[in-house]
Parts: sequence; C-alpha cells; structure tokens
Amino acid sequence: MLVVGSLALDSIETPFGSVRDAVGGSAVYIAAAASYFLSPIRVVGVVGGDFPRHGLKFLEDRNVDLDGLEIVRDGKTFRWSGRYHYDLNERDTLSTELNVFEKFNPKVPESFRKTRAVCLGNIDPVLQLSVLDQLEKPRIVVCDTMNYWIERKNADLKKTLERINVLILNDSEARLLSREPNLIKAARVIRSMGPSVLIIKKGEHGALLTTEQLVFSAPAYPMENIFDPTGAGDSFAGGFVGWLARTDDMSEENLKRAVIYGSTLASFCVEKFSIDGLRDITYLQIQDRFRSFRELSRFDED
Amino acid sequence: MLVVGSLALDSIETPFGSVRDAVGGSAVYIAAAASYFLSPIRVVGVVGGDFPRHGLKFLEDRNVDLDGLEIVRDGKTFRWSGRYHYDLNERDTLSTELNVFEKFNPKVPESFRKTRAVCLGNIDPVLQLSVLDQLEKPRIVVCDTMNYWIERKNADLKKTLERINVLILNDSEARLLSREPNLIKAARVIRSMGPSVLIIKKGEHGALLTTEQLVFSAPAYPMENIFDPTGAGDSFAGGFVGWLARTDDMSEENLKRAVIYGSTLASFCVEKFSIDGLRDITYLQIQDRFRSFRELSRFDED
Repeated sequence: MLVVGSLALDSIETPFGSVRDAVGGSAVYIAAAASYFLSPIRVVGVVGGDFPRHGLKFLEDRNVDLDGLEIVRDGKTFRWSGRYHYDLNERDTLSTELNVFEKFNPKVPESFRKTRAVCLGNIDPVLQLSVLDQLEKPRIVVCDTMNYWIERKNADLKKTLERINVLILNDSEARLLSREPNLIKAARVIRSMGPSVLIIKKGEHGALLTTEQLVFSAPAYPMENIFDPTGAGDSFAGGFVGWLARTDDMSEENLKRAVIYGSTLASFCVEKFSIDGLRDITYLQIQDRFRSFRELSRFDED
Repeated sequence: MLVVGSLALDSIETPFGSVRDAVGGSAVYIAAAASYFLSPIRVVGVVGGDFPRHGLKFLEDRNVDLDGLEIVRDGKTFRWSGRYHYDLNERDTLSTELNVFEKFNPKVPESFRKTRAVCLGNIDPVLQLSVLDQLEKPRIVVCDTMNYWIERKNADLKKTLERINVLILNDSEARLLSREPNLIKAARVIRSMGPSVLIIKKGEHGALLTTEQLVFSAPAYPMENIFDPTGAGDSFAGGFVGWLARTDDMSEENLKRAVIYGSTLASFCVEKFSIDGLRDITYLQIQDRFRSFRELSRFDED
C-alpha cells in the first residue's frame, strides 16, 4: 500500500496545552494508522533537513518503507500551526509554511508502482494526480481533501475525483463541493463526480458511508478526554484504507467494517498529543474498540 | 399516558414555502406521535376560541382524550412564528405570543391523576412542576425543555429535573445546561441533576441515549426531503414515551428501542408541513422504518 501526503512540523494550541514543531502531516498519520493492518506501508513525500530523526524512527518502527521519501538537506519541512476552540470541534489555522512542499514533485520509486492500494492524503490535487499517473492500475484509490483545495484548485480536484474509488471529506466540505445543503443529496452529487464511495466525516457525530445503494451511519466513539484532534481525519483514512488493502474486499459489508476500523484508529489518535496516540496500540485494543463501536449502535427489535 | 404542553398556531417559513397559523404545539405533536403506540393519550393544555375545529378533530381522530383541555372562548391561542435557514438545521424565532398560556394554570382532571406515564412537553418548568404535583406517583416521567427555560427559569427547571426519569434536549442545550462542552461529560453532569436517563438530540446527526452504564448512538434517518422540521423534537418525545408507556419496560434494551421509535415518528413528522406528517401512518410503515434504522447502523465483525 502506498501513501502520499505531507510530513509536517505542527504547532498546536488546545485548551489543554500547546506543542511546537511536533511531528505530524497527513502521510505520517495515514501510514502509522494503516500500519496496524498491513506492512510495509510505502510513503512518498518530502521533508527538510530539520525533520527530526525520531519522526523517521517512529515510521520505521511501524515498518513504513521510506524509500520514496525525499529529504532536502538544506530545506525546511512543511509547517502548520493551528488553534482549537474550547469544544475541540473547530480550529483556526494560524499559519501554513509550504517550505520544501512548494517545489515538491513526487517521484514514485519503480518498486512502488505496482501497489494495489493507494491513499492520496490531503495535499494539492495536482500532486495527487501526478502520483496516480505514475502507478500501474491500483485497485483501490482513496483520496482525502479539504476546503482549501475545493476553493482554490477546484478544476484539478475534479480531475482527481474522476480517477478515484473513495473520497473522504467532512460534512462542511461535502456541502461546499456539492453546493447542496442536504447531505444525502450532496453525497449523490459528489459521487457523480467520480468516486463510487463517499465517506462524510462528522467529527463528534461519527461518519456517513454512502454508495449508490447504501447509506451507513457509523457512530462516533464517546470520548471524554480528547487531547489533540490533529491527525484524526488522517488516522481515519489510514485505518480505513489499511483494512481495505489487507482484506482486498470492496463489498459493502467490508466497506462498513473499514469505516469502523478508521474510526477506531482516529479515536486512539486523539487520546494523546501529536503522533503519540498511534504508538504501540495492540491488536487486542483495536479489536476491543471495534466491538465497542458495535455495542454503541446495536439494538434489537424485541 | 398524560401529555402536558402547548397547543399552538405556528407561522413557519422554510426554503420550500410558508404557512400561517398552522396547527402545532408540543402537546399536539407529542400526543399524535404517542397515539401510534397506545390510547387514549390524555392532554392537559389550553387554547383560545380561535383554535380551529380541525385541529381538535385531528387529535380526536387519533383517539386523544381532550377532557383536560381548557378552552378560553374569548382568548387567543398561543402563537409561534419562525424561519428556518436554508439547510434546515437552524431556525430563528420571529415572534412568540403567549396569549392564553400567560395565565394558564394546568388542572389535571381527577380521572387523569393515576396515569402511569407522563410527558412534560416543552413549556415553563413551573407548569411542568404543577402538573407533577397533581399526579399520583407516575412510573415514567419524561421531560422536554429548551434553551429559553435553561436561561430564564434555571432554578425552576432544576426543581423539575429532580422529579423526572428522562430528560430530552438537544446538544447545544445540553452544553448550556451543564456548562460543559464535551457531550459525554455534559451528560453525566445533567444526570446528576436528577434524570437517570438523558437523551441528547442532534438533529441530522441522530441522538445519544445515556444512562450511568450506557451510551447508545442512534443514527438519523437519511432524508433527502425535509419539508418542515417543526415538531420533530416533540414527535421524537411522543414516539419515545408512547413506546415506553405501551411496553412498561425501562430496561436499557427497551430504552434503545424507544429512541428508535421516537426517531421514526420524527422522521415521518418532517416529511410534510405542520401536523400532516403524523396523519394516517400505518403500523407497517412504522415497523418498516424502524427496520431501516437498524439497517442503517448495522455492521458485522466478519
């Protein structure tokens, strides 16, 4: 499985504290989350000479293949800083420094080109397309995006959408992309742009999985202590694709499971700051939480 | 089963049209929804001489007992007017005229006092308490409230909370009442005020049922065509209490079912304007939709 996305240094303020230059980025969270389901995960991305050694070691410890990682020795790593509101449901971006990402031209190593599953993390859709152009017919293409690209690279994003199986975005982004306030109608509009599967993330309200035939409502894990929501969406994507890639089964029943595994990894992610929530989760913990999700939404007729 | 609440004339603007002086009010929606599960439903409330005959006939056709309805011949019925935003998730109250409700002093008829289940619709908590004072130990007391009473009659509301089993409110009201942004923590704070069961409605995101041991996440029915959200919360409450009163079973499994039946009635309510969504639903339609809710959230481990 291949992941393309950002490797970043995040400066984050939450009501519980703040960190400066913590290891983050969509590719890091996606790869770490997916690594609980299969290995090796292969990353295509770029960092500067200032990316800390322990960030790379974190990925290597998860058996992530970094042959596709470009290191620009005299460049600076992509940086993002943001501040979460007191209820953690909203955040303001304080600054974004593209740095080495500005001139990034992703090169997929020869040995990565026959990958079966690919997760296009939340980066410029032009880069997402460039990666797709270098792959030989992947079976599963999952794409994450955000309002920034919907607003500024709409035409490029639409070209990407024509070539993917699954799009993941949040509810406000779904409304923005479709120009339709009703989420069920919005889902249909977006699926007509290309992806046969659309997942709408709703933060503390869970997620909706829709296909032409299916609407599946996944609950959110009831969390009393969310320390840092950064990376939750990427961890969701990573857990989701990781499960699909492991099982190589795109049936509706398995897509539902993948959504729950994505939600499971996201719930672990937000329990700690930065990438710490994705360190050392056991298989048993993942299975336990998967079952908690089932218990949370299960009811019988009589 | 006894219902106390408002009988109203609603003037509503939605993106799809508007109505003036349509029959509405919490007691009307609650009684109509509950009437699909047991009869007779007994209403305590007040209307003016201007309340239309067809509004009373609607309730009588649903076998609602109106012996507790006070009719002030020379008074005007309670009026509410509101405008929904384009996504139907938010609304602005344009005006509220209490009229006959201003001096309403609910009198529970002797024959109603031994009622087993009572639903205190969204009215002044002082009136809710007055009704409770007139009843002989009801087994099930469900209460609905809103931000207006949380802000203006906080002390009275807290007295009511001490005497109820189930409180129903929406997510922003739960945060307001508990002064806690995290919903799971908010639920615990509110349950410590009295009700052992708390239901947090989340509109298009479904509902959360919480007790000391349980968190149950009920999905929302995916609706493409919501014509008028007015009465959705009351229909939820009516379906919920109606099912509980019919089954007389407060177990966790049955509380979950009651939440789904409440969601079912709410979904029928919003498909048409005013009370029309609660006319002539068949038992088969209710069972079909109940099963749709199960299908919507069902997933298997393998």
